Amino acid sequence: MDQVNVGVIGFGTVGSGTVEILLKNRDIISDRVGSEIIVKKIADLDIVRDRGIALASDVLTTDPSEIIRDPSIDIVVELIGGLTAAKDFILKAMQAGKHVVTANKALLAECGEEIYSAAGKYGVSLAYEASVGGGIPVIRALREGLSANRIHTIMGILNGTSNYILTEMSKNALPYKKAVEEAIRFGYAEDPPTLDVNGTDAAHKLAILVSILFGVPVPFRSIYREGIECLTPDDIRFASEFGYCIKLLAIFRNLGDAIEARVHPAMVPLDHIMANVNGVYNAIYLEGDFVGPNLYYGYGAGKKPTGSSVVADLMHLSRQIRCGVSTLIPPLGYSRPGLMNIAVQPIEELQTSYYFRFSAKDTPGVLSKISGILGENGISIYSVIQKGRDMVGSVPVVMLTHEAKESSVIKALAHMKHLEVLTDKTITIRVEGSK
Amino acid sequence: MDQVNVGVIGFGTVGSGTVEILLKNRDIISDRVGSEIIVKKIADLDIVRDRGIALASDVLTTDPSEIIRDPSIDIVVELIGGLTAAKDFILKAMQAGKHVVTANKALLAECGEEIYSAAGKYGVSLAYEASVGGGIPVIRALREGLSANRIHTIMGILNGTSNYILTEMSKNALPYKKAVEEAIRFGYAEDPPTLDVNGTDAAHKLAILVSILFGVPVPFRSIYREGIECLTPDDIRFASEFGYCIKLLAIFRNLGDAIEARVHPAMVPLDHIMANVNGVYNAIYLEGDFVGPNLYYGYGAGKKPTGSSVVADLMHLSRQIRCGVSTLIPPLGYSRPGLMNIAVQPIEELQTSYYFRFSAKDTPGVLSKISGILGENGISIYSVIQKGRDMVGSVPVVMLTHEAKESSVIKALAHMKHLEVLTDKTITIRVEGSK
Repeated sequence: MDQVNVGVIGFGTVGSGTVEILLKNRDIISDRVGSEIIVKKIADLDIVRDRGIALASDVLTTDPSEIIRDPSIDIVVELIGGLTAAKDFILKAMQAGKHVVTANKALLAECGEEIYSAAGKYGVSLAYEASVGGGIPVIRALREGLSANRIHTIMGILNGTSNYILTEMSKNALPYKKAVEEAIRFGYAEDPPTLDVNGTDAAHKLAILVSILFGVPVPFRSIYREGIECLTPDDIRFASEFGYCIKLLAIFRNLGDAIEARVHPAMVPLDHIMANVNGVYNAIYLEGDFVGPNLYYGYGAGKKPTGSSVVADLMHLSRQIRCGVSTLIPPLGYSRPGLMNIAVQPIEELQTSYYFRFSAKDTPGVLSKISGILGENGISIYSVIQKGRDMVGSVPVVMLTHEAKESSVIKALAHMKHLEVLTDKTITIRVEGSK
Repeated sequence: MDQVNVGVIGFGTVGSGTVEILLKNRDIISDRVGSEIIVKKIADLDIVRDRGIALASDVLTTDPSEIIRDPSIDIVVELIGGLTAAKDFILKAMQAGKHVVTANKALLAECGEEIYSAAGKYGVSLAYEASVGGGIPVIRALREGLSANRIHTIMGILNGTSNYILTEMSKNALPYKKAVEEAIRFGYAEDPPTLDVNGTDAAHKLAILVSILFGVPVPFRSIYREGIECLTPDDIRFASEFGYCIKLLAIFRNLGDAIEARVHPAMVPLDHIMANVNGVYNAIYLEGDFVGPNLYYGYGAGKKPTGSSVVADLMHLSRQIRCGVSTLIPPLGYSRPGLMNIAVQPIEELQTSYYFRFSAKDTPGVLSKISGILGENGISIYSVIQKGRDMVGSVPVVMLTHEAKESSVIKALAHMKHLEVLTDKTITIRVEGSK
């Protein structure tokens, strides 16, 4: 029986999930692959804490270089996260001729170029199914299952923490802060969950998905990011009066000469299939020129689902090793360099419909002042909700616009800062998906 | 530049979709694979009809053996469907050392064993992404993406034609026959659509999915099948009063010592994600021991989506050929024989809740007679709807039961045949998914 030796760097949540699957499902894994996948070494700073997994005494080490230097190890799994140390370990492992499996979306999104070219240079494979969508095999879908297509649209709910927070705000009318506290209490969020709620994590994942479409890393800094921190249960309620829910969406659209790549809260029509993706679930909706619309849905995080993806990658690489192949599929799925430059359209150029919630003094003429400024900037109103005095000292004036240009919206809102009748910051949410 | 030569047998809907993609997306396909995929020959009985695709004059032939005998052809694509001729071509192609791509679910479900062992014997690859779920890469998900898991549940909407018919019956309160006529008129159904509406097509697809889970063909004849032909708009309306919709479901469940594998109309709770899968869409919902719940959704048929899957398989095999590999992944994803026997539980052993619609004379004591017989057979009633005289001469008595054994239901219904107060056949629908 063939044997493939694996070294795992990082024995936290995903690391212990990975090792647990390899031990618990060892029989079907080796039946399927035709090789035993053996965890030869695990490196972590903490080798004392009990993870509830029985390991031989010589498996644990605090020194990752023991893994990288071990000539019997075929595949290195990097699960420490973060940029500098993780990159160093991955590059050294590749240089030592080892294939690499990683769940590190931040690293791939921000330093992908370096990693992908090192894989090419040293002739090893890089697999990263666990970096996007937890247990959902969406990387495989894009790199392989849909590889005959030009994908022109992606709408992703890629961050389970913020989706959980929005779901709680929506179902139980909780204010943002309360929902965050709850998410932390139930273990769905770190404390504080900054990168989850400000859109950075979803943008990392979007960068990876878009890179696969074009075969070249998308410049991460050019992805527009906006978080969910400013949303209130009022916005969620008004959205539903208009027939929408609010989701933190990661959006890609191919415009031909440029692409849209942006992460922000968005109004999604209640009858769109993405409107039913609640709680800690993730979903990736996409449209391809031949496949049409496709949806992938499942847990976006957690030790078991993410471990499931890491082990699938280990199984795939073990099959390759067994056949004597070093690289069947290049990191981004392109055997020849793809497009050299992906031009991401600046957010100011976006054309879409908008939701505005103005906080206004309850005096005559407010609506006329607001709509006047919008009109001057070429923004026309589609629908308005104006209600009585719910909030002390001010009333909400809520509207949906027809399609407008983001730069016009920016101008109009800047202009409105001088309006005395507005008592607070205006909330702006972009509308996605046709109603 | 490497070149992979393909021969296509069958130039119908899927065949022309496949060739269209290979031509239209030739640039990204070769950029991704690193080889040109060339359609060297296409065999079909009709080589005269214009498919709107420009081909060199020597590509078309009426003789499939020209493809099988051509030593320059690396991969044969079988798209004629049906059993005898298709099997013959596939086995001959394999014997000639060619890899095979097929969309033929009937053949794989009914004669899989022969095909899989021929692939092994002749050392070639078999790929069949297009056989289940049209453009949805669900075979890849099961064989690779989720390969670390034991999947314990599958609920599939695997036949777009019957899903379209049920959706029309539900949205527009159309009788079954009218909805079928409409499906035929819009090109969503053949005339007559027998294998689609009687559950056979969905059972073929379920057989393939379940075979991958265990690494051995499931005996197709042991899959229970029941179609949608007896359903009425009344049943759909009553179902929705109980909080359910009706879907033709393909269901797998691992019971440990046996499995459930069955296709029949089922009541699905309206808040289940599968309840939102409408029209010609397909969806596969599954649960794995580590990944948890997963859903895959997209078009289940059509030349473009199905062609997308065929070409994805061609690209994967071309990558293998480029690396000098003949079989990276065995047909069912098992390198060693899986379980030798899958025991499918007889439908009589099923335990579930039931929906009954009795057609009864509008006389006193009907409910007591019906519930008496149910009680004698250990079937207890959860909820009843009894309405006034909508139907001439009889009234519907509709109920949901608590969990009961199918054999008890069969007995009770046989017993009721002698009841004079029942005027028509009783409609029985099994309930799926917890409410």
